[in-house]
Amino acid sequence: MALPFAARLDNVETSAIRELFKLLGKPGIISFAGGFPDAAMFDVEGLREASSHVLTHAPGAALQYGATEGYQPLREQLVQFMATKGVGLAPEELIVTTGSQQALDLLGKAMIDPGDAVIVEGPTFLATIQCFRLYGARVIAAPVDSHGARVDELERLIAEHRPKLVYLIPTFGNPTGATLTLERRKRVLELAARTRTLVVEDDPYGDLYFGEPPPDSLLALSTDVPGSRDWLAYCGSLSKVLSPGLRIGWLSGPAELLAKATMCKQFSDAHTSTFAQATAAEYLRAGRMPATLAHVRAVYAERARAMCDALRKELGDAIAFSEPGGGLFVWARLTGAGGKVADAGVLAKRAIEKGVAFVPGAPFYATEPDAATLRLSFATADVDKIREGVERLALALCSHA
Amino acid sequence: MALPFAARLDNVETSAIRELFKLLGKPGIISFAGGFPDAAMFDVEGLREASSHVLTHAPGAALQYGATEGYQPLREQLVQFMATKGVGLAPEELIVTTGSQQALDLLGKAMIDPGDAVIVEGPTFLATIQCFRLYGARVIAAPVDSHGARVDELERLIAEHRPKLVYLIPTFGNPTGATLTLERRKRVLELAARTRTLVVEDDPYGDLYFGEPPPDSLLALSTDVPGSRDWLAYCGSLSKVLSPGLRIGWLSGPAELLAKATMCKQFSDAHTSTFAQATAAEYLRAGRMPATLAHVRAVYAERARAMCDALRKELGDAIAFSEPGGGLFVWARLTGAGGKVADAGVLAKRAIEKGVAFVPGAPFYATEPDAATLRLSFATADVDKIREGVERLALALCSHA
Repeated sequence: MALPFAARLDNVETSAIRELFKLLGKPGIISFAGGFPDAAMFDVEGLREASSHVLTHAPGAALQYGATEGYQPLREQLVQFMATKGVGLAPEELIVTTGSQQALDLLGKAMIDPGDAVIVEGPTFLATIQCFRLYGARVIAAPVDSHGARVDELERLIAEHRPKLVYLIPTFGNPTGATLTLERRKRVLELAARTRTLVVEDDPYGDLYFGEPPPDSLLALSTDVPGSRDWLAYCGSLSKVLSPGLRIGWLSGPAELLAKATMCKQFSDAHTSTFAQATAAEYLRAGRMPATLAHVRAVYAERARAMCDALRKELGDAIAFSEPGGGLFVWARLTGAGGKVADAGVLAKRAIEKGVAFVPGAPFYATEPDAATLRLSFATADVDKIREGVERLALALCSHA
Repeated sequence: MALPFAARLDNVETSAIRELFKLLGKPGIISFAGGFPDAAMFDVEGLREASSHVLTHAPGAALQYGATEGYQPLREQLVQFMATKGVGLAPEELIVTTGSQQALDLLGKAMIDPGDAVIVEGPTFLATIQCFRLYGARVIAAPVDSHGARVDELERLIAEHRPKLVYLIPTFGNPTGATLTLERRKRVLELAARTRTLVVEDDPYGDLYFGEPPPDSLLALSTDVPGSRDWLAYCGSLSKVLSPGLRIGWLSGPAELLAKATMCKQFSDAHTSTFAQATAAEYLRAGRMPATLAHVRAVYAERARAMCDALRKELGDAIAFSEPGGGLFVWARLTGAGGKVADAGVLAKRAIEKGVAFVPGAPFYATEPDAATLRLSFATADVDKIREGVERLALALCSHA
């Protein structure tokens, strides 16, 4: 067999994390490896009522083909949801996507020709790097610190590479958990408008804050920076706050971009499941989201605190991290203090043997990986399991297998 | 504004049918224009029971992220569904897609580099042409007759263009309604194996037969033609028989192709809605599909018969067509007899004025459009409306607006 696959595919390497995930099936493993929310927190009753309501009151629309741009009642509800976050949009200013992963795919499909540069944070969401590489992109990593992307470096890289787009997760980033400061947000918007460079704001975690809300999104702030909204796309998602299984995301951006993305979507999957869209629309309409958000924020805040406390207590100066203000992740760095292992890939294998899993940080870098980094998700284990998992991690760190 | 879109997008023209569809909103229009099933036939009660069952018994799985390849219980049910059609597959030999449109997109994404040739039937499903063109394909149309693609011409075009793939709708094709004969099916499979050319069988309509079942699918027949299954991909769909709004399709093919398609899907939408997949799996498990199929076959058969009878009675020798044995469409050709209009685009505009809509055939041709052709869907109007619509069509044909 020698099927003639597209040359673009040679640009993508998927084995890094996949190999590790194969080991997760081992019984009794405590996993900090996932990037998903805790299924125990899904509002099953609310979603049951919503889907039942939809099949009673609008079965034809919910089960039939729908507009590629999205189910209109959902677009209206998403606009109201965005309004609670300080963003003023008309329903026509967003399109519904099959998860925010599809929003990234549509941006790649609409924008990227083989050889084009795109800039991402180093490190960033792995599936974004691979998604853009599948379209033949050269993916350039911009340096970040604990306050998110460094805007001076971003400016230098834009001038050097003239990228098709700059992709950022400004709020509780994946994997770093870092949040771009208000001052840097304004500078990013000015940079987008001045250099006429499309900035993509991916915002799946912005609602998951533990104390004070994070700074306003780039999209909300764009009204203050003349010309910036013409160069800004925003990706939203219900996956982390309500249910990933619905596959409901959305994309907002300049009209011309939405038109091209809609055309790309028409030939990608025609439209997102109307059954899922109508269910989500009814869920939002019924007013359940505020209570759901309050619940998940409280639970994740408790787990984040427990993980950070345990890491400090059990691993001491062998690990460095900033306590996250929201999201799902603690991003950490092995210091090598006390002669302990400083390669997170090596530690990951030992950790599996001790019964705890996490994801090494290196694959999240498009270029120049930092092998000492690791990502720990506190989302799916309860507080007792988190403490036990961190104890196992400490054992793995001290072992010399 | 001058966003730098990908050069591939210039390869796609979407205005042809879109302009016509804008006119469909006119009140009182009888539409033969759609390509969708009748929402009145959806088994709403069955789907309500299925989704409720899923949220009671497996809410975590149905609302959480899932495997890119598909929800395993659905893969198992789809394998059983395919077995009723003479196809033996293991669950790992198919992946679930977000409608069969996504199966086409994944084939394009995995196979096509800009400038590659693909061969389709002339005419064929418009969204297939556009989907492949979005990846930069040169789309070559192979001639068809009332028995489907002409295999001698296909062989000549394969030799001439060395295509990445050949796309066929062998059973009740869209738009022609034509069905490839058993003898031609075997020759296509031999051709695929001999020329080492991937053949894609798109089969959304095969279950919608009115009398005798159609010949076995290429996939079912491939066991008889040595080596052919290594060069055959199959796209299935629940959209035409159960509900398009679920967005459940599937792709089967050689293991290497499924692996690449899965990687492409991972970065397209991560996975198809698990809520929709679990609902479809439970629907199939509950054994409702045979009765649903019997019902839709009977209704569409009656409507097809009514449309053909009315066309013969009202339009006489001004129109030529073959009576379809299944599917959703009558494909016809204006003969110009009696000096009547022979351009379906002209007739379409007059028809809207008389209160009936259909789709001209020309846009379905990747190359060399036949302006006299038109596609009439009998799926969504009842028998009385079909008769009234055809009467209006006859009026339009005689008008000289």
